[in-house]
Amino acid sequence: MTANQYRELESYMLFCMKDSAHDKAHIYRVLYVALDIARFEEDIDYDVLVTACLLHDIAREEQSANPSVCHALSGGEKVYLFLKSAGWEEEKACHVKACISSHRYRTGLQPRSIEAKILFDADKIDATGTLGIARTLLYNSQFEEPLYSMLEDNTVSDGSGDVTPSFFQEYRFKLEKLYGKFFTDRCMELAESRRHSAVAFYTSMLEEVRASYEPGKGLLKDLLDK
Amino acid sequence: MTANQYRELESYMLFCMKDSAHDKAHIYRVLYVALDIARFEEDIDYDVLVTACLLHDIAREEQSANPSVCHALSGGEKVYLFLKSAGWEEEKACHVKACISSHRYRTGLQPRSIEAKILFDADKIDATGTLGIARTLLYNSQFEEPLYSMLEDNTVSDGSGDVTPSFFQEYRFKLEKLYGKFFTDRCMELAESRRHSAVAFYTSMLEEVRASYEPGKGLLKDLLDK
Repeated sequence: MTANQYRELESYMLFCMKDSAHDKAHIYRVLYVALDIARFEEDIDYDVLVTACLLHDIAREEQSANPSVCHALSGGEKVYLFLKSAGWEEEKACHVKACISSHRYRTGLQPRSIEAKILFDADKIDATGTLGIARTLLYNSQFEEPLYSMLEDNTVSDGSGDVTPSFFQEYRFKLEKLYGKFFTDRCMELAESRRHSAVAFYTSMLEEVRASYEPGKGLLKDLLDK
Repeated sequence: MTANQYRELESYMLFCMKDSAHDKAHIYRVLYVALDIARFEEDIDYDVLVTACLLHDIAREEQSANPSVCHALSGGEKVYLFLKSAGWEEEKACHVKACISSHRYRTGLQPRSIEAKILFDADKIDATGTLGIARTLLYNSQFEEPLYSMLEDNTVSDGSGDVTPSFFQEYRFKLEKLYGKFFTDRCMELAESRRHSAVAFYTSMLEEVRASYEPGKGLLKDLLDK
């Protein structure tokens, strides 16, 4: 890939994602981590890998506007048409499309090629460690979800048995289960090095939130009982 | 204060803050922490303290809709009128108003009474530790501010010299400077016990974000130079 070809793909990405500062920074992290992972793998098609990384989330805004749209499937289709119009050969355009379509857990499509596996891993590693914590909180805010839920006995839930969405619920049901679920050894290693920072944040936050309610809750009860 | 009086104030708070799950949970934490702090102080007017805590943020939505409104000053006035209409005597209603008006740094009003100082401390402690981190990220998302900025040499800024808003900038300019700025000893102690969790998060995140760019950025350059 030439620098000019790269800049053209980058411009298209920026055009599609103009409204989201967070998502754009995520794209560059995914691209750079993917190239780090690729060093440890063989027979990489770098045109496919770089293109798939740069364009993997270009249908995010369509999904935000209409949650029934899957940004992975829809993004794969959109990128395929863009690449064909830019003169890419059928096989390569299809390969990029396949990478993008399979980068999301819930499409049910498994990443098959090494480029698809690397994109999947590089995207998921942004949900580990402090970046996973921060990005989850940004989404919590977007959907007006609370940090935690209260249990029936009016104590703070740790998220593990919750059915309603919250930051603690998302941590227990998704974030803490990511580790060990990667395709490449390099990503497994990177994720493992970040695990402690996410665990530390969740543990401290649960402790600090719970400490905010005690002994105040009992003191209020005493005050109102007088 | 009777349980009925409390419930009436609570209903008014919930009515004013119906659109914000995050802010409502913050109110209860402030109230409970304030009662914890009050144990170590003398001559507390609990009617004033509990009322000021419950109602200190009821003008938040007015401020969100129109940033020239100050939720502390406007909230103080709104609460004063509400309390007068509920039959509170002039002196007590004014006392609650003064507590609420002085709970925000930028009003320039200093908290004078012990109840005002406790409200100020209990409110600010929610900006320490992991809760300060989480609440800052929620606001970043609301105002579409990025997690970090890039420096001119295309490396990740640690936030310290930034002029544009981001999570790292807010951490360096506000969050890390909160400690030691409280009125009560109990709050100073609570804040100190939470300091390490915020420092750990910022330090890990800076490290993890910077690691995401290296060595990928150089690898991309090599690839495009070929």
